[in-house]
Amino acid sequence: MDLIKKFDGKIKQINDALNKTLSNGEPKILYDAARHLPLAGGKRLRPLFVMLSAESVGGKGEDALPFGLAVEIVHNFTLVHDDIMDKSSLRRGLETVHIKFGEPTAIIAGDLLFAKAFEVLYELKVDPVIFKKLNYVLIKSVEEICDGQQLDMEFEKRKMVSEEEYLSMIEKKTASLFSCATTGGAIVGGGNEKQVDALKRYGKFFGLAFQIWDDYLDLCGKEEEVGKDIGNDLRNGKKTLIVAHALSNADEKEKKILSSVLGNKRATHEDIKRAVEILSNIGSIEYARKKAEKYSEMAKSVLDDVLKDSDSKNVLKELAEYAISRRR
Amino acid sequence: MDLIKKFDGKIKQINDALNKTLSNGEPKILYDAARHLPLAGGKRLRPLFVMLSAESVGGKGEDALPFGLAVEIVHNFTLVHDDIMDKSSLRRGLETVHIKFGEPTAIIAGDLLFAKAFEVLYELKVDPVIFKKLNYVLIKSVEEICDGQQLDMEFEKRKMVSEEEYLSMIEKKTASLFSCATTGGAIVGGGNEKQVDALKRYGKFFGLAFQIWDDYLDLCGKEEEVGKDIGNDLRNGKKTLIVAHALSNADEKEKKILSSVLGNKRATHEDIKRAVEILSNIGSIEYARKKAEKYSEMAKSVLDDVLKDSDSKNVLKELAEYAISRRR
Repeated sequence: MDLIKKFDGKIKQINDALNKTLSNGEPKILYDAARHLPLAGGKRLRPLFVMLSAESVGGKGEDALPFGLAVEIVHNFTLVHDDIMDKSSLRRGLETVHIKFGEPTAIIAGDLLFAKAFEVLYELKVDPVIFKKLNYVLIKSVEEICDGQQLDMEFEKRKMVSEEEYLSMIEKKTASLFSCATTGGAIVGGGNEKQVDALKRYGKFFGLAFQIWDDYLDLCGKEEEVGKDIGNDLRNGKKTLIVAHALSNADEKEKKILSSVLGNKRATHEDIKRAVEILSNIGSIEYARKKAEKYSEMAKSVLDDVLKDSDSKNVLKELAEYAISRRR
Repeated sequence: MDLIKKFDGKIKQINDALNKTLSNGEPKILYDAARHLPLAGGKRLRPLFVMLSAESVGGKGEDALPFGLAVEIVHNFTLVHDDIMDKSSLRRGLETVHIKFGEPTAIIAGDLLFAKAFEVLYELKVDPVIFKKLNYVLIKSVEEICDGQQLDMEFEKRKMVSEEEYLSMIEKKTASLFSCATTGGAIVGGGNEKQVDALKRYGKFFGLAFQIWDDYLDLCGKEEEVGKDIGNDLRNGKKTLIVAHALSNADEKEKKILSSVLGNKRATHEDIKRAVEILSNIGSIEYARKKAEKYSEMAKSVLDDVLKDSDSKNVLKELAEYAISRRR
């Protein structure tokens, strides 16, 4: 948490700008619905990455802020729609948009946020050729997120998912937008081709580590720290890396127990605890931790020869460690 | 119908390009869902307007085609999401996307189409400054459509809606995208400021006439021609101009009968027939027809002094008449 505290100044800047970008509008209910989630807080990691990436190649973080807002708004738009699909009722400690405003308005609110994300790019003071490039990076990322969300849902219904399939899914669903953030920041900051490419890969590796750790926290985090029920990924039948590994390595008895919990919305706290024990005994939790560590290392090392030493480079490396040490 | 037949060549061009733009992809189910509606046909009026507008200011229609595809894809994305909100099961004679593929996939398919619409703009061979302008026109139109859809839904729940409110709603929900089409076409075609503005207003007036006529067809069209159940707008409680006029002019007895049908999903064929009789007696149907005619005239006249005489100018005028004479 301390690492994130360090960015208080930047995060205030991001929040103020976000508040301004998502100002009130008519019809009021629609704009209230659209503002509900993005203005409810969040770590603001993605816009932070945009600003840090711009700085790490010698640019000004502030100049890249509109791209950061766009990425953050895209992130929120996908959450609003995902929550409808997953029938989630709580997010960031608040009612989800579709619970508070109804599903129809939540669908439109997501669409409106999508449009707003692309509108805020017009605040970038960049050459129109660069504008086109940035706009494209963001579009392609949204498409990947769509692909990833569809895969995630399809995997829920499947008995088995390979590690490769899981990694490809989270690369689209989660890592893509982090990669978009670092790429866009590097472009606005005026990074050269090698630097843009390195930061693009940094974002991808960060995202993979981040998501695997997210899955880990869902099983091994503390409810009061994570801010949501533990084990919900199991209840939803999510095929995380931990589950994918376990299903390939469990014996028949273990498999039977795991199957009784996976996708069982009524699984009790006790059921989850027992499943976690099994996952731990098989070594799946340790396996996933190691994998997350590996991606965190990869994220750090791609920056090494390409970026000059700087505060922002150091901070990017620290963030790669934060991805796999955070408690929420 | 004959008028539309005239465009067979252009429509084939549009359909071929659309088919190519929305090619297969992975995950297959998602791409099948995204292709389902846009490739199921439709009048292709919006891309037609883009091409004709470009030609009417001296440009090539084909050069503007990618903008036409973008507008058509936006139109389809909004239909996919609207059908979820309205719980519609049939569209263009086919199952709606959410009925065929499930709601979660339909939500993502709409999002994917949204992204694809903005991606296809990259096929435009225009200066990046013009690209930015076109991209912006499309974004603002999507935002207006969102506002309009929200208003439309809110109006369904209200007892009264004024004519002014109704017109403002359809200007956003329907006319905005037609106006976007004619504006974008004029920009790609190299029209001067006055021409772009005239075509923008043409699109708006066309859209208003078109939507009022659509509402008219819902009550007075023939089922086998319109391709859907007659009276569904009444069953859904839609506050069309006809209904808005009637609610302001009906006596108590008439109001009571109308209220028993409005928003009543179980209203029978007979109930609808009786309501239409009342709407006709009050003069609301005639009133709406006249209003549609007025907008059609306004659409034609804005072009008069601004565009040179040409085939495409004539055709645009004919289309303004088609808007209020079509049977489907």
